[in-house]
Amino acid sequence: MCNIVINAVGFTAATLTTFSFVPQFLKLLKTKKTEGLSLMMMVQIAIGLLLWIVYGLLRKDIVLISANAVGFLIVFVTIAIFLRLKKGKKNEN
Amino acid sequence: MCNIVINAVGFTAATLTTFSFVPQFLKLLKTKKTEGLSLMMMVQIAIGLLLWIVYGLLRKDIVLISANAVGFLIVFVTIAIFLRLKKGKKNEN
Repeated sequence: MCNIVINAVGFTAATLTTFSFVPQFLKLLKTKKTEGLSLMMMVQIAIGLLLWIVYGLLRKDIVLISANAVGFLIVFVTIAIFLRLKKGKKNEN
Repeated sequence: MCNIVINAVGFTAATLTTFSFVPQFLKLLKTKKTEGLSLMMMVQIAIGLLLWIVYGLLRKDIVLISANAVGFLIVFVTIAIFLRLKKGKKNEN
């Protein structure tokens, strides 16, 4: 198959997974509900993405570095909001 | 830096992100709470991982195929449990 199609599939896959936490981030902002969402899952993804960035740096692979840096930032902000909402709920009780 | 270290970083990154939905899956099973968890996020990840598998098939890259196939399976099962719990809650009302 021609390279353009292969690259398009890879690019779409990368875009979907890199920005996958945007809906979760928006849902947290909208509903302010943290129940059911696993903090451990988000922390594991954040550490994994950080290690992908390190791997990209060691391999000098700018695509790996930039895609995972964007993904990491989104997950990081989502974790920050999650913890803030959790803290807010504790203070209410 | 030697290749063993670089490969170890990449392997750890891949393991963490591939199995990142295991804590979410276990939390759903344990608490049976779906509030706060974004279905859209999980569906977006599932489609993204499916496209990574297609990309791996087109590039004939067995590592890409197998890592994303495992990740996809875990997310798929998590979505199935999420929908079942949601349906159960609707039937209760």
